[in-house]
Amino acid sequence: MSNYVAAPLLVHFTGGDVGAWRVTAMNAVSGEVLSPVPFVDMHEGAGAPPPGAWALRGVAGHVRYTTRAEVNALNAKAASLARPEATLAALIPIRKNPQWWALAQDERREIYEDQSRHTTIGLEYIPRIARRLHHSRDLGEPFDFLTWFEFHRDHESAFNELLARLRATKEWGYVDWEVDIRMERSA
Amino acid sequence: MSNYVAAPLLVHFTGGDVGAWRVTAMNAVSGEVLSPVPFVDMHEGAGAPPPGAWALRGVAGHVRYTTRAEVNALNAKAASLARPEATLAALIPIRKNPQWWALAQDERREIYEDQSRHTTIGLEYIPRIARRLHHSRDLGEPFDFLTWFEFHRDHESAFNELLARLRATKEWGYVDWEVDIRMERSA
Repeated sequence: MSNYVAAPLLVHFTGGDVGAWRVTAMNAVSGEVLSPVPFVDMHEGAGAPPPGAWALRGVAGHVRYTTRAEVNALNAKAASLARPEATLAALIPIRKNPQWWALAQDERREIYEDQSRHTTIGLEYIPRIARRLHHSRDLGEPFDFLTWFEFHRDHESAFNELLARLRATKEWGYVDWEVDIRMERSA
Repeated sequence: MSNYVAAPLLVHFTGGDVGAWRVTAMNAVSGEVLSPVPFVDMHEGAGAPPPGAWALRGVAGHVRYTTRAEVNALNAKAASLARPEATLAALIPIRKNPQWWALAQDERREIYEDQSRHTTIGLEYIPRIARRLHHSRDLGEPFDFLTWFEFHRDHESAFNELLARLRATKEWGYVDWEVDIRMERSA
């Protein structure tokens, strides 16, 4: 997807009383849920984000597991964020457990793709689902990753299917905290 | 080396008028040199670092290219930081160019090890040289990596040889900013 960028982009997701996205559901898949909020706002780049009940930070940047062949396949089906027809969104913060982070790079790659088909599964759902991954672990954040999705209302069931398939993988056995926040565009 | 840790450790390197390490040389290998300082201090963990003329931040954490076989080989020869006899140190901040970061993971790994033998070369110099790598790119820092080395005075020429070999690799063709700061223990 064209949301793969090599230059780091800092993004704040703020939950509070204002924002471009109205929250329709917040659930914990594992671990604790975040405090409920009526709106989420996404703030790209430096500068102070709007205040809120909570704020999560992540950096979109270079790929960590994806091969050239996979990057090319993803880019060929690119779906950008902010398509006017994509009025639904999801923010899914995830933390992986210490066993995952103690693995070497080849071990994590093998679980991620060879055993779990993470990219292969994801490819089936673009361009219907636009996605941008943000890395939070090096920032000292509570979650390791924040993934942001945008899609047309007609593709909500496909999105739910995508999540169900990923959550059934061996990779997800290493996820020890996952929150699922659904939204619709408010502005 | 035992300096490979899966849990993120935030580290500040502060250049200024005080610090545990007295600066003996500061040179730019490529790009601009940092402003000259008499001392460097290393501050591990959260909390405010001491003030100084400059401060560089990085996070030591999970490996990004290293395989299980390589991690095991490195750990078997482990050299920890803070050995009393290791009275010399070097801090080498590095930035890689946009071409590097636009590469996919398999392309970067191939250049890093298959073509440049980064880990293979490094293995020849431990345990004489203790090393800890800090990642800075996701933090929005000016450099992408900060590598900290500690060694006995008798191994200074081996350390210089290590740097010369790495700087001659294909990988180093992607380095567009590199500063080399040498120190001796002051406290």
